[in-house]
Amino acid sequence: MSIKLHGYWRSSASYRVRIALNLKGIAYEYVPVHLVKDGGEQHQARYQGLNPSELVPTLVDEDEDIILNQSLAIIEYVDEKYPSAVKLLPEHKLQRARVRALAQDIAADIQPLANLRVLQYLESHYQVDADGKAEWSRHWIEKGFAGIEKRLQTTAGKYCFGFDLSLADVCLVPQIYNALRFGADMASFPLIQRIHENCNKLPEFVAAKPENQPDAQ
Amino acid sequence: MSIKLHGYWRSSASYRVRIALNLKGIAYEYVPVHLVKDGGEQHQARYQGLNPSELVPTLVDEDEDIILNQSLAIIEYVDEKYPSAVKLLPEHKLQRARVRALAQDIAADIQPLANLRVLQYLESHYQVDADGKAEWSRHWIEKGFAGIEKRLQTTAGKYCFGFDLSLADVCLVPQIYNALRFGADMASFPLIQRIHENCNKLPEFVAAKPENQPDAQ
Repeated sequence: MSIKLHGYWRSSASYRVRIALNLKGIAYEYVPVHLVKDGGEQHQARYQGLNPSELVPTLVDEDEDIILNQSLAIIEYVDEKYPSAVKLLPEHKLQRARVRALAQDIAADIQPLANLRVLQYLESHYQVDADGKAEWSRHWIEKGFAGIEKRLQTTAGKYCFGFDLSLADVCLVPQIYNALRFGADMASFPLIQRIHENCNKLPEFVAAKPENQPDAQ
Repeated sequence: MSIKLHGYWRSSASYRVRIALNLKGIAYEYVPVHLVKDGGEQHQARYQGLNPSELVPTLVDEDEDIILNQSLAIIEYVDEKYPSAVKLLPEHKLQRARVRALAQDIAADIQPLANLRVLQYLESHYQVDADGKAEWSRHWIEKGFAGIEKRLQTTAGKYCFGFDLSLADVCLVPQIYNALRFGADMASFPLIQRIHENCNKLPEFVAAKPENQPDAQ
C-alpha cells in the first residue's frame, strides 16, 4: 500500500488520523511506534528520520513522495487529495473556518497538555503522582469541553456541525476517549456525549478505536 | 471597520493574527483583552459571549456575521477570503500540507504548553516559582525548535519555505519572541534565527510586535 501511518494505539492524534482515513475509504498500512517501550521508539534514530519532532503520528504517502506530521495537517491533506469521498472540511469558507476552529480547540488547547511527554515531565520534575497526573489531565479536558459544549449549542445536530461529519468529530471522539480514561466528569457535556454515541455507531469510528489496533495492550 | 481583533499584546496567538492581517493588507480594529487585570478580562461575561473558551484571540468579521476563535483557523479564513493578497497557504497541496504541519508544530506542540493559564496552574498546584516556570517554558520551546530546525534544513530559504512568506513564518516569529522572553538558548537554531531576522525587516511584522500595540505595558 502506498500510504503508511506510523502511530500508537492510544495516541489520540493517531486515532484522529485512523478515523479520517477510514471515513475517506483509504486503505493504509499501520506501523506501530511504541511510545513507552525502551524509552520510546519515537526517540530512536529510525523514527527521528521520519519525524524529527519525535511525536506520532507520521503519514508517509509514497505516491506523492511526502512524509507528513501533525494530525490536522495530515487529515486536511488527505481530504484535499481525495475530494470525491466524504468531505471532512466543508465547502463554504465560513463553515470550514468554524470546523477548523473547533478541531483546534481540541488539537491545540486540550490534547497537547495531557500528552505523554508532559505527564512524564510533571512526574520527573514536580513529583506529580498518578492521581495528580489524572487530575491535571481532567482539568484541561473539562475546561476545554466546557467551551466546546457551549459552541455546540448553536452548531450541533447528529454531529458537531449539523448532520455532516467533519474534522471536528474526528478530533472530538479521540478526546472523549482520553476524557473517560482520566475519569473526567462528562455529566455537564450532554451534546458532546450525544455526538460521541452517534459517531461510535459508525464502523469507520469503531475500526479506529485504540482497542482495535494491532498494538493495543 | 468591519474586522475587529480581540487580543492581548503579549499573546503569541494574537501576535500571529496581527502579522497575518498586516501581510494581507487588511485594516482592522484592535480590541485589547487584558489577560491579567481583575483576574483576566477573558473570563468576564462580555468576552465569554464572544469566545466561550476564554482565550485570545477572537476575530469578529461583521460583513460575514462570523465570530471566530483559534489563530490558525482565523488566518486560513482571512487567507481564503482575500485570495488576491499574498498567499499564506501555498497553492500546491503538498506544500500547503507542509506549511500547515510546521505551523501546528508551533501552535499545538509548543505554544499551548507555555500559555499563561498553564503557568498559573503550575504555580498554584505545584508551587512552581518564576524560575521554574521559565525553565518549563524553555524546555518545550527548545524541544520544539530542535525538531523545527531539522525540518528547516530541507525547506528554508529566506523564510521557512523558500522565498515565499507563509503561515509557518507567521507562527514562528511570535514563538521566537516567547523563546527570548523565557531565556531560551537560541545558539542551536541558526536557521530559525535567520528567518526571524528576515521577517523582522518587514514592516508588517514590525507593526505586529507586542511592544507596538496600544495595550503594551
